[in-house]
Formats: sequence, C-alpha cells, structure tokens
Amino acid sequence: MSQQYPSQLLEKAVGEFAKLPGIGRKTAMRLVLHLLRQEQATVETFGQAIMTLKREVKYCKVCHNISDTETCLICANPRRDPSTICVVENVRDVMAVEATQQFQGLYHVLGGVISPMDGIGPSDLQIDSLVERVKSGGVKEVILALSSTMEGDTTNFFIFRKLAPYEVKMSVIARGISIGDELQYTDEVTLGRSIVNRTLFTGNM
Amino acid sequence: MSQQYPSQLLEKAVGEFAKLPGIGRKTAMRLVLHLLRQEQATVETFGQAIMTLKREVKYCKVCHNISDTETCLICANPRRDPSTICVVENVRDVMAVEATQQFQGLYHVLGGVISPMDGIGPSDLQIDSLVERVKSGGVKEVILALSSTMEGDTTNFFIFRKLAPYEVKMSVIARGISIGDELQYTDEVTLGRSIVNRTLFTGNM
Repeated sequence: MSQQYPSQLLEKAVGEFAKLPGIGRKTAMRLVLHLLRQEQATVETFGQAIMTLKREVKYCKVCHNISDTETCLICANPRRDPSTICVVENVRDVMAVEATQQFQGLYHVLGGVISPMDGIGPSDLQIDSLVERVKSGGVKEVILALSSTMEGDTTNFFIFRKLAPYEVKMSVIARGISIGDELQYTDEVTLGRSIVNRTLFTGNM
Repeated sequence: MSQQYPSQLLEKAVGEFAKLPGIGRKTAMRLVLHLLRQEQATVETFGQAIMTLKREVKYCKVCHNISDTETCLICANPRRDPSTICVVENVRDVMAVEATQQFQGLYHVLGGVISPMDGIGPSDLQIDSLVERVKSGGVKEVILALSSTMEGDTTNFFIFRKLAPYEVKMSVIARGISIGDELQYTDEVTLGRSIVNRTLFTGNM
C-alpha cells in the first residue's frame, strides 16, 4: 500500500523514526502523531535530550563505558577491586551485571564483538586498551562476559591469545541452564555443556 | 531488576524515548544506543525533524488534516468533488482511504472520536466545523468512515443528529467480512451484520 503523506514535514519526521531499528513506518507514524498531540515544550525536551546526549556523551578513559565524567563512577570508586576486570560488549551489559550485585571489580567495555559479517574487526574494539590495562600490572583476573554466540566466542579466543603472554587468570562466565528452566525445554547444546561443566554440589544453591 | 544508569544524559534520553506509547525502557535503551552509534549530523537531523514538525505543522483550514499549506493539497485540488465529504478520525485514516484510490471527494478530519472514558467530548473534535461546511451548502453526501468501535458508533450517531436538520445524504462505510477472510474465523457480530447487509450479486465482485 503506497502512502501519500499530506505533509513533507510529517513525512520527514516519520522517515526519521522509521530509520530506527525495529521501527516500521506504521509504528513511526503512531509515534510521531503521539508527539504531535503533546505540548511544544514536551517535544522540545524529547528532541533536545537525544541531541544533547550525542553532543556531550563521554566515555570513561579507563573502561570506555558511557559516563558523564572523565573517569566513570565505577572506575573512580575506591571500594571496587581493580584487580578483577569484567570484559563486556556494551553499557547495557555493564548495567545487567551491576544489577546482579555479584561483582565488585571493574569493567572493560569493548564496544562490540568481532563480527566479520558486520565488518567489525578487532581494531574497531577496545581490545588494545584492555591489553594495556593488563600490561600495566595489578590485574589478577580477567572475566570474559560476552554473549554466548559465535561472535562472542570468537572475541573470547582473540582476547585469550592477546593476553596469553601476561600473567593473568582468565575466566568465562558460566554457561548452563537458566534458573527456573525446565530440562525438557532446554536446547541440547546448553544441556550438554551444563553436564560437562557440572559443579560440586555442597548442599547450598 | 533495578537499573543504575552510568550517565544522567543517557538516563534522560532513555526516559524520553520510554514515554512514547508502546516503548518500554529496554527498547528505549536499544534505540538510544543505536542513535549514539550514528554520526552527530544524523542525530541532529533526527531531533530537528521532530521539533520542526511540531513547531511548523499546519492544519488545513477546511478539512483540518495535517498540511504544509493553509489549505491542504486535497481540498485545493479542483479535480476533487467538493459535494462528497468523508469524515475520518485522523490523518492516518485519510492516508488509508487515499491509498485505496476509490474516493474522489474531500475529507473532514475530526481529530478523534467521542470517548467519555478518555475525557474526549464532542467539543474537543472538529464537529461544529463539519456542520458549518454542510450548512454553507454544496455538500450532497457525508460518508462516515470511523472505526467500528463503540466510540466510533457513538460519534456516528452524534454527527447524524447534528446534521439531521440539513438536506444531506448520510452514509456509513460498509462493514462485513474482509476480502480474503475465511468465514469460520470471522466473529459472529461481523458475520451477522454482513448477512443482514448483504448486497445484490451481479456477477461482478
């Protein structure tokens, strides 16, 4: 169904929304019409929030996470353990790990994973700066917390080899069945791995 | 899962996106991170398109559809038939009817339907101006093309009574089973209506 927009301004706004991932033209239209029904000031706030973020966003000079300051609040926190570095793909993963409250070390945000299909090579990621952090000493363990995908695994191996010359323990977050999962619905690769990598049962879960 | 944002700028941008209907905080985060990966100019274009639309949007003084000009292109088109007015809820419905290429008349955009639950009464809609259009003469038929909902039906009845004093034919778009629908999956109200309102079969579909 070809759609003739009655206004070029409307068409442009819808077109801009429709460029966002997972937003089709129908959804874009719905969102734009919603904004049109709001006050002028509300729409200005919306537009400015996005533009200001892009203009003023900073990345922590240590871990490369998004930050409002030169060094992010986690890296600057003296109560965090600088001898353990958790390597993640992006800021969402930092937030996910932080939300577990199970990790007291620092992070290293790669900015993606190696993905030749998407044209992302090691030099597009913050891998050299990770090596520098390890090289400069004081790091005892690097925890690789990337997605359990081919790209994540490739990146894990690449980092593993890059860090091999240095005296640092390397670990990967556990893969296994999710808490609450029923065995019959678990895919066989995950189930197989979770049997191979079984842990000693001490009575505590 | 409580989420601690590492940056207030990021949190603000995500919060703004999450105010949009149907966009949760996870989707908002995905959209904001997508925009962060784009060029500065791309993000400015996005923000400006929305703000410019809101600032400069016009509504046609005849039919109240969104327009870049005082009178919209449809109302200003001498080849359209001004004696037939199709009453719709919003600009999306104008676009949907236009896409069918089955209507040569003009539109009247109400800006919504009567919905006491949402606090929308007749005075919030462009009903008086519709009466004015009919009153000023030259209109032979008003086609009511509102949604087949309780609110749409209520609005239809309200307009019907408002226009009753004037000599104008009033019609409602046909309701029935959709083209391609299988009878067994059609709800019984629709099926019942489509039997009551059956049309003469002439061999042409």
